Amino acid sequence: MTEKPYKTALIVGAGPGLGASLARQCRARGMQVALAARDPGRLSGLAAELDLTALECDVSDPAAVARLFVLAEAALGSIESVFFNASGRVKGPLATLDAKAVADVIAISAYGGFLVAKEAALRMTQKGRGAIFFTGASASVKGYAQSAPFAMGKFALRGLAQSAARELAPLGIHVAHFVIDGAIRRAGSSADGDSQLDPDAIAQTYMAILDQPRSAWTWEVEVRPWVEKF
Amino acid sequence: MTEKPYKTALIVGAGPGLGASLARQCRARGMQVALAARDPGRLSGLAAELDLTALECDVSDPAAVARLFVLAEAALGSIESVFFNASGRVKGPLATLDAKAVADVIAISAYGGFLVAKEAALRMTQKGRGAIFFTGASASVKGYAQSAPFAMGKFALRGLAQSAARELAPLGIHVAHFVIDGAIRRAGSSADGDSQLDPDAIAQTYMAILDQPRSAWTWEVEVRPWVEKF
Amino acid sequence: MTEKPYKTALIVGAGPGLGASLARQCRARGMQVALAARDPGRLSGLAAELDLTALECDVSDPAAVARLFVLAEAALGSIESVFFNASGRVKGPLATLDAKAVADVIAISAYGGFLVAKEAALRMTQKGRGAIFFTGASASVKGYAQSAPFAMGKFALRGLAQSAARELAPLGIHVAHFVIDGAIRRAGSSADGDSQLDPDAIAQTYMAILDQPRSAWTWEVEVRPWVEKF
Amino acid sequence: MTEKPYKTALIVGAGPGLGASLARQCRARGMQVALAARDPGRLSGLAAELDLTALECDVSDPAAVARLFVLAEAALGSIESVFFNASGRVKGPLATLDAKAVADVIAISAYGGFLVAKEAALRMTQKGRGAIFFTGASASVKGYAQSAPFAMGKFALRGLAQSAARELAPLGIHVAHFVIDGAIRRAGSSADGDSQLDPDAIAQTYMAILDQPRSAWTWEVEVRPWVEKF
Repeated sequence: MTEKPYKTALIVGAGPGLGASLARQCRARGMQVALAARDPGRLSGLAAELDLTALECDVSDPAAVARLFVLAEAALGSIESVFFNASGRVKGPLATLDAKAVADVIAISAYGGFLVAKEAALRMTQKGRGAIFFTGASASVKGYAQSAPFAMGKFALRGLAQSAARELAPLGIHVAHFVIDGAIRRAGSSADGDSQLDPDAIAQTYMAILDQPRSAWTWEVEVRPWVEKF
Repeated sequence: MTEKPYKTALIVGAGPGLGASLARQCRARGMQVALAARDPGRLSGLAAELDLTALECDVSDPAAVARLFVLAEAALGSIESVFFNASGRVKGPLATLDAKAVADVIAISAYGGFLVAKEAALRMTQKGRGAIFFTGASASVKGYAQSAPFAMGKFALRGLAQSAARELAPLGIHVAHFVIDGAIRRAGSSADGDSQLDPDAIAQTYMAILDQPRSAWTWEVEVRPWVEKF
Repeated sequence: MTEKPYKTALIVGAGPGLGASLARQCRARGMQVALAARDPGRLSGLAAELDLTALECDVSDPAAVARLFVLAEAALGSIESVFFNASGRVKGPLATLDAKAVADVIAISAYGGFLVAKEAALRMTQKGRGAIFFTGASASVKGYAQSAPFAMGKFALRGLAQSAARELAPLGIHVAHFVIDGAIRRAGSSADGDSQLDPDAIAQTYMAILDQPRSAWTWEVEVRPWVEKF
Repeated sequence: MTEKPYKTALIVGAGPGLGASLARQCRARGMQVALAARDPGRLSGLAAELDLTALECDVSDPAAVARLFVLAEAALGSIESVFFNASGRVKGPLATLDAKAVADVIAISAYGGFLVAKEAALRMTQKGRGAIFFTGASASVKGYAQSAPFAMGKFALRGLAQSAARELAPLGIHVAHFVIDGAIRRAGSSADGDSQLDPDAIAQTYMAILDQPRSAWTWEVEVRPWVEKF
């Protein structure tokens, strides 16, 4: 395959769970990695441990996302893979939800995904290669009661991912959407054995999809614990 | 059935196509009807013809939507059915889309749907009856290339509808989502025979779903012309 | 609409529940009706009550299905609408299922649907009009644990219906698939109020879909009780 | 992970394409492999090349499938992973399809999958480990015009896989379904570059899913060429 392997990764919406596992596994395969979070101070330990770049970004702000890509490129060179994990959530009966809070959930979970995809597409279409991976949830395909805002954000992100895949795959850019169907185990916790999603196990599947030759690309894959009802 | 029939309808996002057909068929069954549009002047002919109330509303503004319901109740009494048809659209390669325009599409198509559903739920949950119907599109279930914003808005609206159905159906409120899979024929046009969706035909199905006894409610139905590829 | 209304109905797999409700509502709109069941003796009361034709048919036998259509035409004239409700079921852990019983479930639920669709298509394509409606279940879209054979039969029937819709809709034949998502209340029972699917309510939706103008045909619709989890 | 790696594989429905690639990659990781086909003579070259066992099996015959597992166990020891690829196909307008040919397609594509799953489940549930992977197609999720039999077989197989996953995953057995969405390149052909599915690339994803820790199992994944419309 001429198109592989990717040498750099930008992980947007990186916390101590999946984001950290993705960072570790990208680093383990020799990739340069930048992490972005609203509060990058929370990433300082990880950044030091893995020798990677931590950047601040409000993903719902177009200018901030544009700047993020510029800074990430300055640190890593051309961005060849992007992982979008950011999301927000508010719960409760529809009639009682705060309108502003719902707007914020959509802005972070879906609009932020668009802004990141736009900047990534701008660069990757010029190279004819790259990967843009979106992290979904059970709520990406099932709208649960009293959780409309999260469903709206995650459904929208899935629509974005599917549209992006249809546009960008024929241009050589791999777009994939991951339905994380279950609770992710907190880093360091082992109380629940493997009955909750281990972020390292999830990241392993992201890496496997990242390794796919383009003759057999996946645009969507779901993962859940063996004991999870679905 | 004690819960039927509904005596009033609020149609949000009403243009000369589906909104007008819904208004006519609701009126034909004796319902009182209010129409809301960003520019209600465009509705004046229809309002006069059908003797109904036309109201102005920016569906992406929480205060405007709250006021809309107050005005509609003042005109009609208790709002027993709500139809949400508003949407926006911008097209083009992801990399070239205007960020502000995309935000507007999401605000009208999805967030507006949430605001309307919230106001409707607030009132209908107190009565234990009512109907909230959302108008979707092909893009509700399929993200097309170069049409990510519309897909994001329509996927999100579908997530909202499904979540609302799960929350509100057991409270006696019928939530349904309509996937309009194809182009709607312009009112008055007959050039294409029945190869495009006739808004009166679509509205007929909305009325049939509105008539369902609650022992057999539909939450989603799609319609498309007989000749449409799918 | 030149294509409506349909004057005859053949209801295959007719028991005391949905089949009887469909028969009653078709008769109420003046249609001539034939019912087919493996044991038509069970239909004699209904046949007498509604003045309709009861025929014997093993739907998994090609010759029997061909004969059924000939007999139904002899009784009713041209068959303009067909309803396929037949299905079988065996449950249990995969490892313990009886292979012959599973073959029978598939033969009745799916292969029978094909045989009926084939005979219907043969006739309706010559007229360029008609309707073929298939009755699905929750298991049409969700494979439940310990219920693989029913899922196989119902998934296959849905695949048939979708393929038939894509082939036959452009020829003027309306193919629709109904996902009955919940338990159907036994005829005459009122113990559960409207918390179970009332067969009359289901049939009402079949009739509404039968009435759709072809500019806005539905190929799939689901129904479930207001209180049903989904 | 205590549950990995699997040491043996039984590949049912093995031709020169995907089956051979799966066999090669299983062998490359040191697994013992048995191949089953209706005409095992076609596998003799591959069997010699890879030092594996070729067995004859009509997958639609319960006794033959039971015997296959006994012979495979005799050759390999306990069967820890099973791949089911068999399928049949007939095409044409519904009205013209040969009823017997359609029965055969369903028997091979779906009933055969059940028989194999039953034998596998019987053994794996006793060990609390193992993997059962099913090969689907575009037709697993989309019923194409004039291809109803293949859709019936593949939809049914997907229903089986989903039901099996729900039953068996909590027992420690990984069930997965692969939607191969596009034409598989013929072995040895390179005329189309990577615009068709390369069987080695597909098999790479099967292996990645086989390697998943059970805290993050996938039950379904699709693959298609980068240039494929979907």
